[in-house]
Amino acid sequence: MDMENLKHLLEGVKDGRVEIEEALSKLKNLPFEDVGFAKIDYHRAIRNGYPEVIYCQGKTIEQIKVIVQKLLEKGNNNIMATRADRAVYEGIREITGDTEYYETARIVAVKRREILRSEKIIAVVSAGTSDIPVAEEAAVTAEILGNRVNRLYDVGVAGIHRLLACMEDLMNANVLIVVAGMEGALASVVGGLVDKPVIAVPTSIGYGANFGGLSALLTMLNSCASGVGVVNIDNGFGAGYLAGMINRL
Amino acid sequence: MDMENLKHLLEGVKDGRVEIEEALSKLKNLPFEDVGFAKIDYHRAIRNGYPEVIYCQGKTIEQIKVIVQKLLEKGNNNIMATRADRAVYEGIREITGDTEYYETARIVAVKRREILRSEKIIAVVSAGTSDIPVAEEAAVTAEILGNRVNRLYDVGVAGIHRLLACMEDLMNANVLIVVAGMEGALASVVGGLVDKPVIAVPTSIGYGANFGGLSALLTMLNSCASGVGVVNIDNGFGAGYLAGMINRL
Amino acid sequence: MDMENLKHLLEGVKDGRVEIEEALSKLKNLPFEDVGFAKIDYHRAIRNGYPEVIYCQGKTIEQIKVIVQKLLEKGNNNIMATRADRAVYEGIREITGDTEYYETARIVAVKRREILRSEKIIAVVSAGTSDIPVAEEAAVTAEILGNRVNRLYDVGVAGIHRLLACMEDLMNANVLIVVAGMEGALASVVGGLVDKPVIAVPTSIGYGANFGGLSALLTMLNSCASGVGVVNIDNGFGAGYLAGMINRL
Amino acid sequence: MDMENLKHLLEGVKDGRVEIEEALSKLKNLPFEDVGFAKIDYHRAIRNGYPEVIYCQGKTIEQIKVIVQKLLEKGNNNIMATRADRAVYEGIREITGDTEYYETARIVAVKRREILRSEKIIAVVSAGTSDIPVAEEAAVTAEILGNRVNRLYDVGVAGIHRLLACMEDLMNANVLIVVAGMEGALASVVGGLVDKPVIAVPTSIGYGANFGGLSALLTMLNSCASGVGVVNIDNGFGAGYLAGMINRL
Amino acid sequence: MDMENLKHLLEGVKDGRVEIEEALSKLKNLPFEDVGFAKIDYHRAIRNGYPEVIYCQGKTIEQIKVIVQKLLEKGNNNIMATRADRAVYEGIREITGDTEYYETARIVAVKRREILRSEKIIAVVSAGTSDIPVAEEAAVTAEILGNRVNRLYDVGVAGIHRLLACMEDLMNANVLIVVAGMEGALASVVGGLVDKPVIAVPTSIGYGANFGGLSALLTMLNSCASGVGVVNIDNGFGAGYLAGMINRL
Amino acid sequence: MDMENLKHLLEGVKDGRVEIEEALSKLKNLPFEDVGFAKIDYHRAIRNGYPEVIYCQGKTIEQIKVIVQKLLEKGNNNIMATRADRAVYEGIREITGDTEYYETARIVAVKRREILRSEKIIAVVSAGTSDIPVAEEAAVTAEILGNRVNRLYDVGVAGIHRLLACMEDLMNANVLIVVAGMEGALASVVGGLVDKPVIAVPTSIGYGANFGGLSALLTMLNSCASGVGVVNIDNGFGAGYLAGMINRL
Amino acid sequence: MDMENLKHLLEGVKDGRVEIEEALSKLKNLPFEDVGFAKIDYHRAIRNGYPEVIYCQGKTIEQIKVIVQKLLEKGNNNIMATRADRAVYEGIREITGDTEYYETARIVAVKRREILRSEKIIAVVSAGTSDIPVAEEAAVTAEILGNRVNRLYDVGVAGIHRLLACMEDLMNANVLIVVAGMEGALASVVGGLVDKPVIAVPTSIGYGANFGGLSALLTMLNSCASGVGVVNIDNGFGAGYLAGMINRL
Amino acid sequence: MDMENLKHLLEGVKDGRVEIEEALSKLKNLPFEDVGFAKIDYHRAIRNGYPEVIYCQGKTIEQIKVIVQKLLEKGNNNIMATRADRAVYEGIREITGDTEYYETARIVAVKRREILRSEKIIAVVSAGTSDIPVAEEAAVTAEILGNRVNRLYDVGVAGIHRLLACMEDLMNANVLIVVAGMEGALASVVGGLVDKPVIAVPTSIGYGANFGGLSALLTMLNSCASGVGVVNIDNGFGAGYLAGMINRL
Repeated sequence: MDMENLKHLLEGVKDGRVEIEEALSKLKNLPFEDVGFAKIDYHRAIRNGYPEVIYCQGKTIEQIKVIVQKLLEKGNNNIMATRADRAVYEGIREITGDTEYYETARIVAVKRREILRSEKIIAVVSAGTSDIPVAEEAAVTAEILGNRVNRLYDVGVAGIHRLLACMEDLMNANVLIVVAGMEGALASVVGGLVDKPVIAVPTSIGYGANFGGLSALLTMLNSCASGVGVVNIDNGFGAGYLAGMINRL
Repeated sequence: MDMENLKHLLEGVKDGRVEIEEALSKLKNLPFEDVGFAKIDYHRAIRNGYPEVIYCQGKTIEQIKVIVQKLLEKGNNNIMATRADRAVYEGIREITGDTEYYETARIVAVKRREILRSEKIIAVVSAGTSDIPVAEEAAVTAEILGNRVNRLYDVGVAGIHRLLACMEDLMNANVLIVVAGMEGALASVVGGLVDKPVIAVPTSIGYGANFGGLSALLTMLNSCASGVGVVNIDNGFGAGYLAGMINRL
Repeated sequence: MDMENLKHLLEGVKDGRVEIEEALSKLKNLPFEDVGFAKIDYHRAIRNGYPEVIYCQGKTIEQIKVIVQKLLEKGNNNIMATRADRAVYEGIREITGDTEYYETARIVAVKRREILRSEKIIAVVSAGTSDIPVAEEAAVTAEILGNRVNRLYDVGVAGIHRLLACMEDLMNANVLIVVAGMEGALASVVGGLVDKPVIAVPTSIGYGANFGGLSALLTMLNSCASGVGVVNIDNGFGAGYLAGMINRL
Repeated sequence: MDMENLKHLLEGVKDGRVEIEEALSKLKNLPFEDVGFAKIDYHRAIRNGYPEVIYCQGKTIEQIKVIVQKLLEKGNNNIMATRADRAVYEGIREITGDTEYYETARIVAVKRREILRSEKIIAVVSAGTSDIPVAEEAAVTAEILGNRVNRLYDVGVAGIHRLLACMEDLMNANVLIVVAGMEGALASVVGGLVDKPVIAVPTSIGYGANFGGLSALLTMLNSCASGVGVVNIDNGFGAGYLAGMINRL
Repeated sequence: MDMENLKHLLEGVKDGRVEIEEALSKLKNLPFEDVGFAKIDYHRAIRNGYPEVIYCQGKTIEQIKVIVQKLLEKGNNNIMATRADRAVYEGIREITGDTEYYETARIVAVKRREILRSEKIIAVVSAGTSDIPVAEEAAVTAEILGNRVNRLYDVGVAGIHRLLACMEDLMNANVLIVVAGMEGALASVVGGLVDKPVIAVPTSIGYGANFGGLSALLTMLNSCASGVGVVNIDNGFGAGYLAGMINRL
Repeated sequence: MDMENLKHLLEGVKDGRVEIEEALSKLKNLPFEDVGFAKIDYHRAIRNGYPEVIYCQGKTIEQIKVIVQKLLEKGNNNIMATRADRAVYEGIREITGDTEYYETARIVAVKRREILRSEKIIAVVSAGTSDIPVAEEAAVTAEILGNRVNRLYDVGVAGIHRLLACMEDLMNANVLIVVAGMEGALASVVGGLVDKPVIAVPTSIGYGANFGGLSALLTMLNSCASGVGVVNIDNGFGAGYLAGMINRL
Repeated sequence: MDMENLKHLLEGVKDGRVEIEEALSKLKNLPFEDVGFAKIDYHRAIRNGYPEVIYCQGKTIEQIKVIVQKLLEKGNNNIMATRADRAVYEGIREITGDTEYYETARIVAVKRREILRSEKIIAVVSAGTSDIPVAEEAAVTAEILGNRVNRLYDVGVAGIHRLLACMEDLMNANVLIVVAGMEGALASVVGGLVDKPVIAVPTSIGYGANFGGLSALLTMLNSCASGVGVVNIDNGFGAGYLAGMINRL
Repeated sequence: MDMENLKHLLEGVKDGRVEIEEALSKLKNLPFEDVGFAKIDYHRAIRNGYPEVIYCQGKTIEQIKVIVQKLLEKGNNNIMATRADRAVYEGIREITGDTEYYETARIVAVKRREILRSEKIIAVVSAGTSDIPVAEEAAVTAEILGNRVNRLYDVGVAGIHRLLACMEDLMNANVLIVVAGMEGALASVVGGLVDKPVIAVPTSIGYGANFGGLSALLTMLNSCASGVGVVNIDNGFGAGYLAGMINRL
């Protein structure tokens, strides 16, 4: 629904180069294809050089394979499938060989084009060992989007000396992702130590009054440190994507 | 408890055609039969030409079969069983051959009578691929009730061009059902685009701060667009039934 | 963003009757005017013969007056201001004399054009005396939109004989609005008695485990009766608007 | 800690019939025995003629068997085990033959003594077929405690004629238990029809905005009918016990 | 909607003593009168010798006065107005002199007929001084309904010796009402000490994680003691009414 | 209900020194006096040398004055009134001159006896300026109970250097109270820095997703640091009392 | 607690230029001053050229004035006071004349130094007129931090044509802030239209099932569009600060 | 981050004994080792004579084994692994023979050094048989930390005579841990009986309105007894640790 495309189309109509019916139809058909259970976009990669993203949860492997097939037919796009178990990986590998699986991060990547890499660093900071899968989802996402990532794991606030020992790494980052479950407090502390944007990811790790991540979510939203934005519980992908977007501004 | 029936009964009592004890007993026994674990209604189909509906969750296959048997014995009614897995379908098919199974919608339909069909269209609009089972429950329900349905799937608001490309279909609908999980926002946007009633169905699809559909439910209830009514989370049947009722007014 | 308008505009562009820059500007400026704190729509009334609606809560009287002024300048539209206290009414009356105030419903109406009236009836059913303000908001809204309304108040389920005494009125309605606070149960009972669409409005009336209307809201969403759609807590306007929309299909 | 027992003990001490150390020890050891994982009461049955009750959830079969063994050794008590699966039943039958299993109610009963039966009736009213297990837990509990029970099942408010057809049964009851999940509304309606105490049991039956029984629980607590008391979600035993206690006053 | 009345009416119709239209009209008009904002019942007092009850919250004094006027005109009923401030009391006293105001309980009583009194005792047990208004609402309600009440106040579980010192009073009660805010625990302890029905009333007294009475409500619903039923937060009237109903069985 | 007292009483009964009726009566009357709206304890101060505590919220000034009067008549006890506004202070000063008011802490103290002071230090650590009233309630409570208190205010984790600058003070404390609203994280960080017991007090300070202190409460309960116990939201008194109790073990 | 400062201090200690006690004291005293109720930082402005920020809610005017005084004495810093009513403004103006009050945004600004301005644009997009105070808090904050801001107000998704008419403005922004109450959906739609970072601010505007902003908060966290980070309900300042930080990377 | 260590290091730097780079590196490397997925602390045991604690949930057995290996290599520390199933136990026993498994408590202990034992007693009081696993986690934790523990199980408040029979044991304890699920009330009652610190542990045992332990949690936080601190739901370890810390002050 890009205003420039619309303007260009209107000029074509005026010049008589474009028929009205054709214009209307283009407005509807250009940007995606309807395969019944999904409408596949072909323009994202073109628009911003990013891979097409498939969120796998709730989709059958057959559905995922159709989407991958269509995306590869249309352009020579990079593809990234999130929340993907090993069976998804194997399904996609049947279609194309240049497929990689990041097991901890549950991400499948199909790499067709070179991505321009940014030299600025995204730090992914996580509180506990159990938070690592979400942290990896964030880190791998950011890497696939062309960013350098520095992983700082197991630096929860209950042992603040571990975090302070990472001061240089924290200071050198251009954007920071903070992943924490029980210990949502980490986002506040990191946010107070640096003057760069912090993307906070609450995780559902914990028990009892953690209430599936609600505790960490509320803590992060109430952070007293300025410069902290929060994504959904366990949404490592969202954090990696947002951090990457910021890092490449 | 129909006022007209009561009046007619009273007239029979007055004329002496109906004994008082008989009248009292009719008031209790007429409209349904008690099979112990359930009281089976025989009057719904007669009243509004609709099929009898069996909600299968929490009932054993044996219980469902008894209810189907009784309903078919009493009249030649159409029957619709919701939240039905394949085993329910097979159980019902043992009783009567004219049975159809809609797998994605989890609905079994027994068709005995012709249903008058409305020409006006119900659009079923859904946000993501994972919302399709609930959307299908709504669509199949509306179809069994005699409505024409137009399915518009995977048109979530995060890619608004997909939705706008369906403008004509949205405009042509007489009633709209909007099914969305994480993206409960779709109901507001559709409600603002059309001036027809919108039935919104939140789904439990999502994770984290979705809280089992609570997020989409609250969004839909807070819709700024006028003309939006909401049903329970994942209640595709309820939406299809209400939309069909409105469509046939 | 009407597809027909767009088509017409494109034809104008093709014919050379419309300049491209003009077309683009029309796309942006036609349907509303920007007065800084609000973007005022002028097309709603034209589109569906309905009054323009102003939601007053959170707006200053000065802001409301500017919006009314602009709407009256542009066309000779009917206007309806909801959640309006007496001060709002007096502010609007300074601008135009043909202004009416419905105190219980907290609605101000400016009537400039005749509205075509539907003969079909909307029943507004309410549970308790304290629910009447919300019920009146629904009833007055439906009336201003050109519907006949039948009010059935104080018929909560704890005295079911009162409700059953209204059977004829319930049966004669084409659409029903059920307003209930503590006793959200009323929507289920009414929904089971009629085979017409029911719009349920939970109210915040009650105390303790009512939790500001949450109790009635959940009850209504879980209604076992088919054909019930729910709007936000205390949203009498939304129910009246949706019921009116359905009644005039 | 019975005041009369204490008085009697004090008299014994005064008379010299009871040594002080003995008195102190009696105060601690009389009413129960400590078997490590549990303190088993032996005095309940004596006190009120009721069976000893074992809540099985969270206990191993071995623990349950030890408790049953001890209870039978001590007195010739009746015993009632709730939330008991078939394995529990078989475990208890190994100890004593006079054991009965109520499968739907998940209750095991050991009957050693005759219970005086009350002629007054407890009505157990339930909304849907899926609510029957909880209703049966209430009904069987009341029966074991010596009450006559009248079961009125599948009479939810969405088909109010079914409920009204039971008017005589409702009127004849001395105490009523109302079991309902989605349709928590049933307690209000029944409470308004009768002028006897109503014990309401919300069930976790339902989906979506039912939130594990929260919806029915809140509805019942907000009942507009006077004379309604509520027990925990799915607590059929508690309702049967309380109703029995009231019925025998 | 009494089945016996219906039978009698049917007999009248059969005998020709009652016209059909008259019968229908009686069915609708007999039990109450419609004064616009409320439908006033005249039959409750006749049915069970109890006073008519007016819940004042959310009603204007003028509305309350109309209801009182109508009730007194119709029969010589006792009347009880709950949640009534002093202004309500003064309004009612203008109509009839035999009016009493219970300030702490916020109850106005109009006494016209003698109520038969029960000799059995209802104990009203409350945890803290701040819970007294709710406890008084329960106690006064029970007294007006003809019960003897024994007040046991400020016996919260944090000083269990105070409660144990009341053992005789607890034992002598036929029904018990337990009122507690922060200290919802009191219902469990009392329920374990006696073998009589306990009606538990959570109050909104407290702060912080009390969440307006939610804490006490949940505690009471989860009571391990058998024989406890719960009413809404702060619903002293409901508890007094239910206890009175049980006490007079 | 002290076991030793009971033993002593029993010996008296045995010796004939104590009559049975007298013993029973002593068991009921000794430890407190009933003034209608409250049961006043006279034994706490004797038992542990602590002042009697009056929680003023929800009590009238007249009630508070009666309680103070009775406590002073009975013994020469110290008294501490919490949640006390200036009017309470003035009311108490009318009774006795040796009264002090701690305005920020909302505490009135009547000092009659010398309290033995502990030399070990309780540190009261608070996150923000707005948390100071709760922190002061904790600090003044601990001081009145005879403890030395070290106040460390405005050391929230968003500026961790402020907290680290207090390391020596933190290390020197024997027990720590951590008071924090939005920034519940402070308890985790402090808990990780010291190896002494930490009492965490969430406050209701904040806005939005703070939800009246829920956010801080959940964070503190989920603290990863070992050695942290939590009290109710805004319960400065509870924290000061518990810390004092621990400090004097 | 800057690693470089620490290194520099260590070098001074090594060279003998800095005494150990002095070093320790510097580590504690350098970055802030303790005025009892607050610890005032003097280093923020130096570090990042940003103004010192005072959050006024919960602070007395006297406390705010002390903080402003200290900050101005120490350096010639810019100061920004948020959640400030007119009385705060007048209090600060007594100290220094170069004070400005942004009434809608509730911000007081003291401007002493020139701020380097970024040419890149932050768009502040808001849904309804009632959301403007929060939107202004975000916009003014971003402006004070040296950013150019483009305000796009009243473009909620229920009238999507208004939003689409702003496409060029949306496309031209480098960072976007989306402020929405009931209509939390706006963040998803904007996030799908642009490929720049979106900071979403839920507001507490709305009623009923809005639950004080919870509805909009959950919607925004569940946004299907990638690149969306969320701040606390009504936290316009936090969004403006984070957006400014990102915009100047 | 110990202030004394820092001072010592600074002295080394001043004396020239320590190089600056070395000092910086020590600050980072001394207290822990980074094994990628975890940062292992070696200093806890040295600091307070306590075992190193490994929280096993969310860690693979391989990860746990690496951590145990490293801890044993570094010092001859005691180790305690919580939330450990039998497989974890067997994994650790492969590394070192002096390993013990507490099955009910789900704790593995490696004992290398003698722990000084305190003679003062910690009482672990639990409400029901199902609460025993959490109670054992608390009891075993306290024992491993060198405390004497007295277990008082199945003494819930619904049978208060069982609890009162333990009065002597309660009185003899120096610190008390109260573990209760449904019956969160136990903490209040125990807190009122003793004048020693009580650590309350809510458990998730129960059903329905227990909501996974929320009910017991809220009850405990609202305890009217002074001297009660609460830990997370099911957090037996936390309670045992905190009680041990207090007991050894």
